[in-house]
Amino acid sequence: MTTKFSFTLKATDGKARTGVIDTPRGQIRTPAFMPVGTAATVKAMMPESVAATGADILLGNTYHLMLRPTAERIDRLGGLHKFMNWHKPILTDSGGFQVMSLSGLRKLTEEGVTFKSHVDGSKHHLSPERSMEIQRLLGSDIVMCFDECPALPADRDRIAESMRLSMRWAARSREAFGDRPGYALFGIQQGGLERDMREESAEALKAIGFEGYAIGGLAVGEGQEAMFGCLDYAPDMLPEDKPRYLMGVGKPDDIVGAVKRGVDMMDCVLPSRSGRTGQVFTRHGVLNIKNARHQDDPRPLDEQCGCPACRNYSRAYLHHVFRSQEIISSMLLTWHNLHYFQDLMQGMRDAIAEGRFDAWEAEFHARRAEGDIAPL
Amino acid sequence: MTTKFSFTLKATDGKARTGVIDTPRGQIRTPAFMPVGTAATVKAMMPESVAATGADILLGNTYHLMLRPTAERIDRLGGLHKFMNWHKPILTDSGGFQVMSLSGLRKLTEEGVTFKSHVDGSKHHLSPERSMEIQRLLGSDIVMCFDECPALPADRDRIAESMRLSMRWAARSREAFGDRPGYALFGIQQGGLERDMREESAEALKAIGFEGYAIGGLAVGEGQEAMFGCLDYAPDMLPEDKPRYLMGVGKPDDIVGAVKRGVDMMDCVLPSRSGRTGQVFTRHGVLNIKNARHQDDPRPLDEQCGCPACRNYSRAYLHHVFRSQEIISSMLLTWHNLHYFQDLMQGMRDAIAEGRFDAWEAEFHARRAEGDIAPL
Repeated sequence: MTTKFSFTLKATDGKARTGVIDTPRGQIRTPAFMPVGTAATVKAMMPESVAATGADILLGNTYHLMLRPTAERIDRLGGLHKFMNWHKPILTDSGGFQVMSLSGLRKLTEEGVTFKSHVDGSKHHLSPERSMEIQRLLGSDIVMCFDECPALPADRDRIAESMRLSMRWAARSREAFGDRPGYALFGIQQGGLERDMREESAEALKAIGFEGYAIGGLAVGEGQEAMFGCLDYAPDMLPEDKPRYLMGVGKPDDIVGAVKRGVDMMDCVLPSRSGRTGQVFTRHGVLNIKNARHQDDPRPLDEQCGCPACRNYSRAYLHHVFRSQEIISSMLLTWHNLHYFQDLMQGMRDAIAEGRFDAWEAEFHARRAEGDIAPL
Repeated sequence: MTTKFSFTLKATDGKARTGVIDTPRGQIRTPAFMPVGTAATVKAMMPESVAATGADILLGNTYHLMLRPTAERIDRLGGLHKFMNWHKPILTDSGGFQVMSLSGLRKLTEEGVTFKSHVDGSKHHLSPERSMEIQRLLGSDIVMCFDECPALPADRDRIAESMRLSMRWAARSREAFGDRPGYALFGIQQGGLERDMREESAEALKAIGFEGYAIGGLAVGEGQEAMFGCLDYAPDMLPEDKPRYLMGVGKPDDIVGAVKRGVDMMDCVLPSRSGRTGQVFTRHGVLNIKNARHQDDPRPLDEQCGCPACRNYSRAYLHHVFRSQEIISSMLLTWHNLHYFQDLMQGMRDAIAEGRFDAWEAEFHARRAEGDIAPL
């Protein structure tokens, strides 16, 4: 086991990259998809099941955990890994994004943000210094800078103002994070869809220096075409020898397009949230298990999938338990979706390592274009 | 693997018995507690996890399954075992009890019961013949006679009338069940709290002849003292060489008292339902994980319990996920409760086999009297 945090690029294919992040808690194979464990659980999953899908790292949400059960309580109980029984790496966001999207009344100043909890209305404060403290108390392996992120579309002035505030906060985050061997602090590039501001942001972050660099402020309503447009240049502005993390992405085709453009890490609630609403991802695209066409279908969701939902259950069973609102429906469909997303990442890692990413991508799109298997 | 259904009594201690039921789908160690898998799932549990708690057999509900997804559909899909991925024995009830407790408008005649579904208001019919057909379509290993059961208290005339109808239905059930090697049909003794009627019912059932005998019409509101009063004589009226099944029981102390009185099998939704409402069974009695006293407690629910909830999580974590309404709360607490119930049965099986049931029972009550461990 290493005692350091490091990134090793193993192979590239076009702009697509594959490598390994070494941490004292284990290796993270990249490109990596991080399931989201908002409130110290990936919803409807046992942590050993999350690991069984192939996940090397989870994302935890600072905003949720600081409100309940609180970072101080988790620290007293031995940290987030022990608390939630997940002993591989954890990345935590800074809390900034969800203060904006979830909390009640909030006040933003140069110093930080004051806001009301969406749980009980209590008043809280976040700043670069407090966010670093919370993420340290949680025991997060990869800590994110505290930043501010405007919803898109936004005008250039608003984007510039916000980005520059985030860069000042990035410097304060770096200072507050201190010297913590084995742990990493990632800077977050902002600048919306404005190329010059992305450049300015990247330069500011590189001047500070981080163990990894995130691309923030995307997947916030701009659409895939605009996002890919930005990803055509944004990753190239970041250091080649550090991991690049695209925050909050995404759908399978978003993920593939991001990897193709040089992204190494991603996270999204989509596979777990969809598992609870009956939306299922397969090689053939998306299906909804609620649909009556599945009620007599003895076939698995995907005949080539190795997850328990596919190995042990028919579509008819999954349809039945979804319609009956049984908890096992969320358990099995979430497991399947997470397994699918991890299979997708493994497929890309192998293809990049073997220099056949373009062929892999063509097959990915061709299979999805076929649509779900025909009813019996 | 045997191809027959048989019961072997291994040891007795006072009236308490331990033995083995052999079936083509595996052995059932008695005394046995059967978790309830109402709608083709033990709520919040994967079937392999149910097996890991030590359960040898599940109970399925004919009433629920006939309405959704229907017995005919389950049959087309290969039977209930395959449908729900549970390959050990399954016992199904006859549907009669839940028609009375759950369905809408119903009409009872000598022939059977017509009723409206609680799911969609559709009209359905159950009779001894239809109940046998449904349980055969499901592939149930232990089939229950179709019976009628009055809520207690009820007057003697009502109890006698109902019991005699159930005995006529028992004869029709036996006839309709036919000759099915490897499968068992259990008769159900009725008669409320009236000793002479319990005797009359037992004689009627023995004259027909069954592979096992249930004690029905208890745990329907009469209280533990009255139930134990009836169990002081009712099991003795049933054949010694066949399994005796007390339906719908119960709390841990109900179970212990029933085993002491000669009962071999039981079922109850209590451990699984309680797991979803935060009620936890331990050697020290019952605790509610919602209570604030647990929020900083790093200790497991029960230090001697080997279930995943106790091995891997603190009370503080279980409190947090319960309060946050996370699905993993139901998953872990249900697992713990089922594990506790199965440990209880194993403890009794061992104690009976070793002739120390009284000492075991005294310790069981002494530990519960201590109450939960003191807060830190």
